[in-house]
Amino acid sequence: MEDENSVDKKFQKELNSGVAALVLLDIVSRAEQPMYGYQIANMIGESKQDVSFIKQGTFYPVLHSLENNGLLTSRVEPSVSGPPRRYYSITPDGNQALARWKTIWTATKNFADSILRS
Amino acid sequence: MEDENSVDKKFQKELNSGVAALVLLDIVSRAEQPMYGYQIANMIGESKQDVSFIKQGTFYPVLHSLENNGLLTSRVEPSVSGPPRRYYSITPDGNQALARWKTIWTATKNFADSILRS
Repeated sequence: MEDENSVDKKFQKELNSGVAALVLLDIVSRAEQPMYGYQIANMIGESKQDVSFIKQGTFYPVLHSLENNGLLTSRVEPSVSGPPRRYYSITPDGNQALARWKTIWTATKNFADSILRS
Repeated sequence: MEDENSVDKKFQKELNSGVAALVLLDIVSRAEQPMYGYQIANMIGESKQDVSFIKQGTFYPVLHSLENNGLLTSRVEPSVSGPPRRYYSITPDGNQALARWKTIWTATKNFADSILRS
């Protein structure tokens, strides 16, 4: 077979592709102000779970995809301490999608667990 | 934005790509005898959860991928009632991958839920 590492990476990557979108949308939805990537990464880090799978290199494409689909909006602003930052906010469509996605997530989770425990 | 249906379908598809592999590997691992696709579909149906997302057309490619990665093995046998059937069994590598994937699944689930509930 492909080596152990390879099949596990593929599996983890598949799982993450949906989960990352859900988690990022949720974090931005609850922010009182628009957030830039590094702030979002810190929020994820504070969850104290194994977050090795949401590296900066992984989640920026997910942010872009959410924006392309109209669920997030962003604007670039200058920063005094470095290069300009892109700040993300959730859109009304994004809030609606988040509510539906939470339902989909719960159903998918319950489905998988019902099989694994049966 | 893309229409509601479209973003939800994309999200569900992303979530499913990993979950389907986990669930199929688990079902075949616990079977006392090799199983063919229709039997696996029935096992999934018995979970009584919303299984709209694992249609036959969706899960055959996942079975093939698991076989290509050496986690399942299959043989084709004639059937008295129709076309030949492909029977799937789990391999030793598949059993080892399943154990690791269950751990990855639990960690991913806990991570997402820790964010969603925070």
